[in-house]
Amino acid sequence: MDITVAIDAMGGDHGPHVTVPAALKFLSENPEVNIILVGLQDALEVELKAHRATIGPRLRIHHASEVVAMDESPALALKSKKDSSMRVAANLIKTGEAHACVSAGNTGALMAISRFVLKTLPGIERPAIAKLMPSMRGSVCMLDLGANVDCSPEQLLQFGIMGAMLVSAVHHKSNPTVGLLNIGSEEIKGNEVVKQAGELLRKSGLNYAGNVEGNDIYLGTTDVVVCDGFTGNVALKTSEGLAKMVGTFLSEEFKRNVYSKLAGVIAFPVLQSFKDRVDSRRYNGASLLGLRGVVVKSHGGADEFAFRYALGQAVEEVRNKVLHRIAEKIAEQIPSHPPEAAD
Amino acid sequence: MDITVAIDAMGGDHGPHVTVPAALKFLSENPEVNIILVGLQDALEVELKAHRATIGPRLRIHHASEVVAMDESPALALKSKKDSSMRVAANLIKTGEAHACVSAGNTGALMAISRFVLKTLPGIERPAIAKLMPSMRGSVCMLDLGANVDCSPEQLLQFGIMGAMLVSAVHHKSNPTVGLLNIGSEEIKGNEVVKQAGELLRKSGLNYAGNVEGNDIYLGTTDVVVCDGFTGNVALKTSEGLAKMVGTFLSEEFKRNVYSKLAGVIAFPVLQSFKDRVDSRRYNGASLLGLRGVVVKSHGGADEFAFRYALGQAVEEVRNKVLHRIAEKIAEQIPSHPPEAAD
Repeated sequence: MDITVAIDAMGGDHGPHVTVPAALKFLSENPEVNIILVGLQDALEVELKAHRATIGPRLRIHHASEVVAMDESPALALKSKKDSSMRVAANLIKTGEAHACVSAGNTGALMAISRFVLKTLPGIERPAIAKLMPSMRGSVCMLDLGANVDCSPEQLLQFGIMGAMLVSAVHHKSNPTVGLLNIGSEEIKGNEVVKQAGELLRKSGLNYAGNVEGNDIYLGTTDVVVCDGFTGNVALKTSEGLAKMVGTFLSEEFKRNVYSKLAGVIAFPVLQSFKDRVDSRRYNGASLLGLRGVVVKSHGGADEFAFRYALGQAVEEVRNKVLHRIAEKIAEQIPSHPPEAAD
Repeated sequence: MDITVAIDAMGGDHGPHVTVPAALKFLSENPEVNIILVGLQDALEVELKAHRATIGPRLRIHHASEVVAMDESPALALKSKKDSSMRVAANLIKTGEAHACVSAGNTGALMAISRFVLKTLPGIERPAIAKLMPSMRGSVCMLDLGANVDCSPEQLLQFGIMGAMLVSAVHHKSNPTVGLLNIGSEEIKGNEVVKQAGELLRKSGLNYAGNVEGNDIYLGTTDVVVCDGFTGNVALKTSEGLAKMVGTFLSEEFKRNVYSKLAGVIAFPVLQSFKDRVDSRRYNGASLLGLRGVVVKSHGGADEFAFRYALGQAVEEVRNKVLHRIAEKIAEQIPSHPPEAAD
């Protein structure tokens, strides 16, 4: 099956300078993928030319006259920029021209536009941002990472279902374990929402492993970690800050004096393979789950290497029919929503 | 001024095996400090004997016949164990025999017992758990780390005041900056409680720096980071998990083959100084702030080295009159509470 991905080519801190070369490299590595670059025709042509590339049967440009700024209000972007590269890219899913859309742009705007254009799957109240992160046992899928500040117990259950389906589809784990992020492993811990969500998850058909704590994310205690968007966003960004501090300190120690510099040269291949292993670029690409379309958000500062991982995430979700699986499981759990409305 | 610290000598995963040698070493290094070891007399005498130490004018044993288990219900510990080492140690502050108490025991029980025995300072609704953490600019004080799952805006303001006073007293920063943990730097971000807390902090006399995000904790953007206990606990434990994963991966890479093992030997002093710099043991000792007494919680798994840091934290809080400063600032901010009730 050929898969067509629409790229919001203007999105992110670097726009076409990253999205275009990433698209070209990705196309050369994935013969079954087609790409539509969405954005300012002129800018995209210049960038293609700079890479001695041209459009063709697997790569085309779809002009969009506006660009959503990284710091623009999502509501304003939705209301006033109807021809933004982000919105046109989402529209291409709706019209059936693309199977998925990838953007490194403004997260809030991407969520607002995707919800407006694509709508949510039956039985899903609100989409969530899900992301794979490295763990001591491989990887862990965490959601929500910031789309929903306040969540109901029912929404947390929906997140659990969506996360489990993403992991089972893309990572081929048949019955992934789901943990509920809390501040203690006992059932009595946490606030009312978390306690009630625990009840719903326990009664669900998911492989529910009970409460997990912050350290369990990286220990890889469960395959999926469910939380509200406030907590998830804080956990994710705290991790980013700590990783940066650790990296800086390590680098500083190896630059301290002549001996440590020499040690750094000798240890370089080892440090490099460590760095590769925790390289956040390999985990780039957060899924906006719960929509009637595959939408993947790349980190705004992603380089070409990282952006290709976001493209890969989108392709894998289409290939493994994540939306269909979510719709089926939601219908199974919440029988008032038949799955046929999903695809 | 002589400072007397009551140690819950039975608390923690290792009990007297850690608390007694830590107390002996701490006494030898701090001539102005006296220590009361609280716990089972026989067990403490055996441990003292094992270290060829005896009681004396600066070190005494206060017998307590019961011990709170690490997994015991706080409510049960409070209700049924009136002669626990934890409770007796807190009581020694109330009777004026000790200036501070340090325990590596059950956090929930220590909080419940301390609140019951010591009560909160005027104007403080609930105590918070505050902890210094390393940051790229030195250190950052974060609170609450788990005592209060749901917080009102007023409580978050109180946490801000307490955190700022702790940092100004113990770290001699005259006007520490206070950040409110949120999921975006704009004022409109976050849930209702956080938005209202932002309003209160803005109007307060504190050096309020606005919203901070998870990454700002370790970047050291502000001196104090205020959050509810659920979010704070998740951020802290997520950090613990990530630190463990990073440490494990780094160690695994240096053990991968003959070359990397050799590189590890050569890089050992550099890696060791990196490890020292991020050594969580140097940050051991969380303060239960807002009580009418200095209570410090050591990590349950603390070794002798780490436990001494918790003792040091308690002594510094007493020496720098943290309680007095908190009471004064609260009275200034919330004028219905005169500071004279504090000390």
